[in-house]
Amino acid sequence: MPEFEFELTATDSHTSARAGRWSTPHGTVDTPVFMPVGTLATVKGLLPAQLREVGVQMVLANTYHLELRPGAEIVESMGGLHQFMDWQGPILTDSGGFQVFSLARLRRLSDEGCVFQSHIDGSTFELSPERAVRIQEQLGADCIMCLDECPPSGETRDKIRDAVRRTTLWAKRCRDAQVRSDQALFGIIQGGVHADLRQTSASELLELDFPGYAVGGLSVGEPPPVMYRVLDDTVPLLPTDRPRYLMGVGRPEDILEAVCRGIDMFDCVMPTRNGRNAMAFTSDGPVRLRNAVHARSEGPLDAECDCVACTRYSRAYLRHLFVAREMLGPILLSLHNIAFYQRLVRGLREAVLTKSVAEFRAEQLARWNSPR
Amino acid sequence: MPEFEFELTATDSHTSARAGRWSTPHGTVDTPVFMPVGTLATVKGLLPAQLREVGVQMVLANTYHLELRPGAEIVESMGGLHQFMDWQGPILTDSGGFQVFSLARLRRLSDEGCVFQSHIDGSTFELSPERAVRIQEQLGADCIMCLDECPPSGETRDKIRDAVRRTTLWAKRCRDAQVRSDQALFGIIQGGVHADLRQTSASELLELDFPGYAVGGLSVGEPPPVMYRVLDDTVPLLPTDRPRYLMGVGRPEDILEAVCRGIDMFDCVMPTRNGRNAMAFTSDGPVRLRNAVHARSEGPLDAECDCVACTRYSRAYLRHLFVAREMLGPILLSLHNIAFYQRLVRGLREAVLTKSVAEFRAEQLARWNSPR
Repeated sequence: MPEFEFELTATDSHTSARAGRWSTPHGTVDTPVFMPVGTLATVKGLLPAQLREVGVQMVLANTYHLELRPGAEIVESMGGLHQFMDWQGPILTDSGGFQVFSLARLRRLSDEGCVFQSHIDGSTFELSPERAVRIQEQLGADCIMCLDECPPSGETRDKIRDAVRRTTLWAKRCRDAQVRSDQALFGIIQGGVHADLRQTSASELLELDFPGYAVGGLSVGEPPPVMYRVLDDTVPLLPTDRPRYLMGVGRPEDILEAVCRGIDMFDCVMPTRNGRNAMAFTSDGPVRLRNAVHARSEGPLDAECDCVACTRYSRAYLRHLFVAREMLGPILLSLHNIAFYQRLVRGLREAVLTKSVAEFRAEQLARWNSPR
Repeated sequence: MPEFEFELTATDSHTSARAGRWSTPHGTVDTPVFMPVGTLATVKGLLPAQLREVGVQMVLANTYHLELRPGAEIVESMGGLHQFMDWQGPILTDSGGFQVFSLARLRRLSDEGCVFQSHIDGSTFELSPERAVRIQEQLGADCIMCLDECPPSGETRDKIRDAVRRTTLWAKRCRDAQVRSDQALFGIIQGGVHADLRQTSASELLELDFPGYAVGGLSVGEPPPVMYRVLDDTVPLLPTDRPRYLMGVGRPEDILEAVCRGIDMFDCVMPTRNGRNAMAFTSDGPVRLRNAVHARSEGPLDAECDCVACTRYSRAYLRHLFVAREMLGPILLSLHNIAFYQRLVRGLREAVLTKSVAEFRAEQLARWNSPR
């Protein structure tokens, strides 16, 4: 797919970190890239112009949620997701598999597909590999995902082996179902915390020759060191000339560790969800703005950040907004946290170009964890 | 007060409408002016830059609410309201009187002042004319209000006469208490729906020679025609060379009618409150966006509006945001409704300059009320 060329700009000397440029029909993305989550065709509380201002290049939207409300068919009739939500840059949609297994009430699961009940009104929906691709073609994102089976953390090895088998089966059917040629369809590696199952999943999916690969089934409850170990086992199996996407991850330190292991793409609700709950990521570690210590704090939230929240307001004002339950609190802190994540991935990219990722990682971790 | 010069630019031929320019320490305001309500030092969900973009020149903040949270003393120590909320244009604060009589639990009322319990946590506060001025000096708005007694609609004539007496008494004490010379202190005319009591209130307050006058005690439950009649009785009593402010009003048609009766300044929660509830004001009358008729509507909310909501999104998307309870719905509709109000007062000003206010009024009312 020449439309989706992935150019490996540089690799680090002491880690597996990479810097690249990935072309899509809606623009080129610098990697590592962090995608804010716009579940329902909106990054909660923020306008596209605000996202662009803090450096966002690509956003994620959610197939499951959009099919339930307003329906992919309506999004399609409105000209597709880009026009519907006014995001003119690249968009990725997940397949809905994760939500079916975590959020919906799953009624029936077979190799054919699954039947589930909406978490909103209990109405019944069916999802098959073909349907997942069809919905994502209606939505029209630049990057779409195969339907996968994502078992919860702690599931038995047998169940995970079966999920790998089914994920491969579904991946093939997704590939065969794809009609549009302007969307990059990614395969999703499953296999839980088992190195051999990850190997099986990767080798089966590599045979299907996807333009990019995601690592799924992580950040589902396992401890971070286990996740890092699984990345150590899995990422080296993936082709170097295609983007690698770690789904649903994660904390800033997880992103550091995953980039060092060769991951290029990330998404996570954490910056926006934590922002709505008055928790800010800063250059010197997390800040809880409801804390009374900020009541008279004239200083900015993060002196090194150039977002609106940090350049125009005091911590005292931001705290006041949360204490008074004013919408502007969640808005400003979501924006700031996204700016923080963007600065993090930009810093990582910069560090790859200067072959200094290990130093960058050590420096960031030291600052985030230093006592204050 | 030379800092607060009010220049009468033009008057209409067939109505009492006026166009003026009012100087304040934070900039000049074109009148008629509509002030969005920023109760707690934030116009709900909107950044100052967004307000400026749709033409907002002046905002209102609320003494009662800000004294309860975060406290005027904190706002003062943060450099005052302008810096605290990052609004660099003119600000008006009300005195808190209205909230004490409507929102708080009033424990004691005398000529001295009042004691009330916070609607948030029941804690006890005292408000006197001196304290109301002191708090407003701490907040630091450009325009501040005398403490008044604002009786509910339907109160007996005797009670309203007593409220007029007390409002005059308090106005004198407010004037005497004022220390800062960079804030315009307005007197508030009371008197309910009684022409003679309005006359009494106006003549007593005019003796105190305030740099501007507000008409209070309206839009508290009386029918609109009664309010218009009270304006007919009251506004002609006010000096032509000072700004006239109708507090807490109102619907677009109320603003039309009040401007025609010589009012210059307005504030109301309606554009933001209705916006949060999916009700939009448009060039062709109100639109309820939750209505299913908009589910597939590709058209803009208001083709004549140049706000972000109208230029970047379909009605279908805006409806989706409300159905999905996404924050961006209230944000976009609040912004749009404020843009609508700004366009309305700009249109009225333009009409005064061209001596065509009656035509403008007729045209607007016809469009808003035409069947669709």
